[in-house]
Amino acid sequence: MMLPTDPAQNLAKLIRCPSVTPAEGGALAVLEDMLKPLGFAVARPTFSEAGTPDIENLYARRAGDGPHLMFAGHTDVVPVGDEAAWKHPPFAAEIANGEMYGRGAVDMKGGIACFVAALARHVEETGGPSGSVSLLITGDEEGPAINGTAKLLQWASARGEAWDACLLGEPTNPERLGDMVKVGRRGSLSATLTVLGRQGHAAYPHLADNPVRGLMTLVDALLDPPFDAGTERFQPTNLEVTSIDVGNPATNVIAARASAAFNVRFNDTWTVESLQAEIHNRLDTASRRRKYRKDRKEPVEFELAWRDNPSHVFLTHDDKLIGTLARSVEAVTGMHPALSTSGGTSDARYIKDYCPVVEFGLVGQTMHMVDERVQLADLETLTQIYRRFIGDWFGSR
Amino acid sequence: MMLPTDPAQNLAKLIRCPSVTPAEGGALAVLEDMLKPLGFAVARPTFSEAGTPDIENLYARRAGDGPHLMFAGHTDVVPVGDEAAWKHPPFAAEIANGEMYGRGAVDMKGGIACFVAALARHVEETGGPSGSVSLLITGDEEGPAINGTAKLLQWASARGEAWDACLLGEPTNPERLGDMVKVGRRGSLSATLTVLGRQGHAAYPHLADNPVRGLMTLVDALLDPPFDAGTERFQPTNLEVTSIDVGNPATNVIAARASAAFNVRFNDTWTVESLQAEIHNRLDTASRRRKYRKDRKEPVEFELAWRDNPSHVFLTHDDKLIGTLARSVEAVTGMHPALSTSGGTSDARYIKDYCPVVEFGLVGQTMHMVDERVQLADLETLTQIYRRFIGDWFGSR
Repeated sequence: MMLPTDPAQNLAKLIRCPSVTPAEGGALAVLEDMLKPLGFAVARPTFSEAGTPDIENLYARRAGDGPHLMFAGHTDVVPVGDEAAWKHPPFAAEIANGEMYGRGAVDMKGGIACFVAALARHVEETGGPSGSVSLLITGDEEGPAINGTAKLLQWASARGEAWDACLLGEPTNPERLGDMVKVGRRGSLSATLTVLGRQGHAAYPHLADNPVRGLMTLVDALLDPPFDAGTERFQPTNLEVTSIDVGNPATNVIAARASAAFNVRFNDTWTVESLQAEIHNRLDTASRRRKYRKDRKEPVEFELAWRDNPSHVFLTHDDKLIGTLARSVEAVTGMHPALSTSGGTSDARYIKDYCPVVEFGLVGQTMHMVDERVQLADLETLTQIYRRFIGDWFGSR
Repeated sequence: MMLPTDPAQNLAKLIRCPSVTPAEGGALAVLEDMLKPLGFAVARPTFSEAGTPDIENLYARRAGDGPHLMFAGHTDVVPVGDEAAWKHPPFAAEIANGEMYGRGAVDMKGGIACFVAALARHVEETGGPSGSVSLLITGDEEGPAINGTAKLLQWASARGEAWDACLLGEPTNPERLGDMVKVGRRGSLSATLTVLGRQGHAAYPHLADNPVRGLMTLVDALLDPPFDAGTERFQPTNLEVTSIDVGNPATNVIAARASAAFNVRFNDTWTVESLQAEIHNRLDTASRRRKYRKDRKEPVEFELAWRDNPSHVFLTHDDKLIGTLARSVEAVTGMHPALSTSGGTSDARYIKDYCPVVEFGLVGQTMHMVDERVQLADLETLTQIYRRFIGDWFGSR
């Protein structure tokens, strides 16, 4: 039987499954077919939650006697956008000029295709790793992410699964394969700030309390000064005001309330709790300062509503995991990958509660765009990196 | 024939006409019936404009040989609001505890009722003024004000009418009859400021340009420092931000644009043009400062759209007009009225282009509210003040 050692063939099969979240689209079935000849036991649990679509997921384990390495990822993809704008159809896996086109080519069916190919080569060449290898693949990473990785980890853990390390195959490289390994992620915290003023006529501002003046004061305190200057492995904490909304159409009326939504990406200077306390403290202090309405004595009246599900910051400290991956990248590409914590959140934020996790995959430049595509040469290179990593991590090159 | 010398009777007839803008409601017909026995020639032109309801207005002149005094006002009223909340029906003119209840009691059917009564007494007692007296009464002051005073002035002027002075009967007194004569009005200017940023992911703010940061910088420059410290007859110029709107529901997305609407009430330090130039200058300077995004070199990109129809500031300098009115108030009430320019705009902003104008009427406390009402004693006092003013202004006490 032919093992799935060719990453381009693996990827073409996956791209041809139109698995836009929440559709499974055949992608997990294709993956199961690749894994079974490699000796994996495959489970495909479906998770449900009121108000969200049911999602199918996959957990596969090739059991062995020794440490347990998990490879994590997702087969779901974002919508194609303007399909007519694609040079090649988004679910056809057409190749042109050495590139394969298709939704998910880099984010991240490509990463899965390379990991499967790397493992198949290891099995073909050495009989396979001495320990256990598992694939934890969700169909709900690009969507609500309710019925995905978090539940799949719980589900597997409840069945006795435990892991020593995880490699997540998201596209981590900004420009060239070998640029960047992610060894942690910033936390993310969102809230809505509402200032309660007193409505009135714009010609009689002293009889009203314009909430925009109060909101300007409070938002100023959120934007300045900076929360920190960054740490060894992390960028400075950053706050973006994503919306301000008053919704008052009358030019001669002072509104009753004004609100601002904001999102903070924070580093390991903070925990969710300490950052929330700092923000509350800044707002309390500014509310008494009344920068834009000095004639009023009462503090600015405000309400702060935190969004559910903040992401906690984390940094992986596993020298074996990080070192083995970085050396594999260097051995294959000659590049020293940056050990970074930049960018948004990923499912690594769930995995880190179960085992050390690092992230390395393809080049992300075309992800989520029209004409998402991957260089065939990158598929081969990433397969070689993963192949070397598996061998070295298990000590069975 | 009984002349309309009783302001309470006059007012009761006017209140019983439900003349909520744009409805004439019989109010101008009632007024015409009062004026004809006093020797007035009455015209009731209707003005139209696409997109607005037709509005009936009244211009009445009692011609004489000598100077020409105009009394100006409006018979239209604002809606009653929650009619069930009124102690007495809003169009019944019921009297309780020495007060007459009804929509328009003070704003400003009461002022018209007193002026007609004062004139009737002057006619009864002296045969009437030697010069001309006219009433310029619109049915469109509380509404769009498109088919009202501005067109009525044009209409009359085109027919050869010219005036030496005008008394506008709006409720000018904050607490007690005699508190305040208005001798000018601040200007009013409105605009919408839009900052154009670049959309992006909240985790990669350096790849985006959050327009909220730019807008915060520009709005800060509008709110601080103050435009001036006020002048002899005017409050300080004041700017209120009436709305800020981004409308971005996604907490992990940086928006592409953000806008703020603002209104400035300005004094005679400024003209419309010089204030617009000052605001542009503040925005240009702040746009280069980039207070909240110092790493970017390009100025904040913004658009400023002025609203049509700014109100020009004006101050009336007619010593005879102001002095005669102030002395009339003092003679009847014993109070020295403040000569003020506070509050919102009024139709005086149109009249001032034709002749000097001052404003004096009833106490405004219940205007636009449920249970709008006037003390019967105030109706009598205001009638006496108007009676004395007419006599003294024409020199025919």
